[in-house]
Amino acid sequence: LDRVRAMAGLRARAKVISENSFPVGVGLASSASGFAALSLAASRAAGLKLSQRELSILARFGSGSACRSIPGGFTEWTAGTSSEDSFAKQIAPPEHWELRDVIAIVSRAHKRVGSTEGHSLAPTSHLHQARVASVADRLAQAKTALLERDLATLGRIMEEDAVSMHAVMMTSRPPIYYWLPGSIRLIHKVQNWRAEGLEVYFTFDAGPNIHLICQAADQAEVERRLKDIEGVLEVIVSGPGPGARVIEP
Amino acid sequence: LDRVRAMAGLRARAKVISENSFPVGVGLASSASGFAALSLAASRAAGLKLSQRELSILARFGSGSACRSIPGGFTEWTAGTSSEDSFAKQIAPPEHWELRDVIAIVSRAHKRVGSTEGHSLAPTSHLHQARVASVADRLAQAKTALLERDLATLGRIMEEDAVSMHAVMMTSRPPIYYWLPGSIRLIHKVQNWRAEGLEVYFTFDAGPNIHLICQAADQAEVERRLKDIEGVLEVIVSGPGPGARVIEP
Repeated sequence: LDRVRAMAGLRARAKVISENSFPVGVGLASSASGFAALSLAASRAAGLKLSQRELSILARFGSGSACRSIPGGFTEWTAGTSSEDSFAKQIAPPEHWELRDVIAIVSRAHKRVGSTEGHSLAPTSHLHQARVASVADRLAQAKTALLERDLATLGRIMEEDAVSMHAVMMTSRPPIYYWLPGSIRLIHKVQNWRAEGLEVYFTFDAGPNIHLICQAADQAEVERRLKDIEGVLEVIVSGPGPGARVIEP
Repeated sequence: LDRVRAMAGLRARAKVISENSFPVGVGLASSASGFAALSLAASRAAGLKLSQRELSILARFGSGSACRSIPGGFTEWTAGTSSEDSFAKQIAPPEHWELRDVIAIVSRAHKRVGSTEGHSLAPTSHLHQARVASVADRLAQAKTALLERDLATLGRIMEEDAVSMHAVMMTSRPPIYYWLPGSIRLIHKVQNWRAEGLEVYFTFDAGPNIHLICQAADQAEVERRLKDIEGVLEVIVSGPGPGARVIEP
């Protein structure tokens, strides 16, 4: 809010009420949606009309991932070299591809190590540099796969990247182990389901809960199968979102 | 056996009966002990008197790890540059340190991907080179810790190395996921137990079963705690062994 006050030349204090439609602090990037919402709400309340790029930059100060929640649909966060050119832009609109994110909650416990602390430890892992060096390649392949609606390629890249991130965390000093028994159980299930012909891939944020990505047509089947699995406490389904928007003028 | 026949100038055929005192094919390096035993038994049966170095080189042709099972106690496998200088030698005798390996069996299933196939896939992982580059450092630290009986250092290096190996396998193309829910459950348990003051560290071979390394004095407590854990099918305790030896002349 101090940044918004500075931008608008205001000194007013504000009351912020935030609601989230999904669990907070369990590694589902809840801070991303929260900070994206706050950036838009605060800037509008302060009378500012920021561009999407300016909003994305502002949101990034709250939480890195938050910059991606400003534009809708499928977005890319360009790393940039300074605060001024690190923001997210849309690669494809939400209607480009009817993908579903079926999230299996295996733990509701608030994570002991936050994402920011986790990020700061990453360079202590002997695998960190190799991961960083390989990201551009995976990003390019993922973008192409996304534009071509090629789930097999996107899925495999996504799985590799998620495991790579967790590998860096698990080899940091001190190590961070976010995966739980339920996380591993579902990694194996996803592989078995694919072998059986159900096209579904997994990814993780910095937490134990697993995102199963599939086409909208397979969502019901994925949900049905998740219901019988030990350790799955709850299932949340999401799709490409519309981006940050004002819902009450 | 062909190698032994060639070394001894024999053409005789042999009947080989092999017994193992622990589960086979579940990622506990059973092939290592088997090939070490076979190397010694076959060479003696053929009338050869091989040096420990020669035996270690011979065993390595059966299974890489087998070369380490020839000398007793704590051994190091020197990579070498050819078959002639890739063998294991003793760093410290068995009585140097009363360590215990408390193995928690979480799966008796024969692994789907063998170690040799796993090794051959490693270079397809984007993390492989970083792992290889970091091994010399960890080996040097582990040797010093071993000679100084410094379990805290040895344990942390060992855990990092085990996770690093599994990270390479999980990011190979195709990926290999050996960890099971029980593996992860025990990783978390070991960390909790350490936080409570029980000095125990984990490591893995290329499989889901977890080795808990502790001082002999803590063995009973580690075993007791393992008994109550979901997914632990069996507990096997081992210590530094005496190396390959002829038990029946």
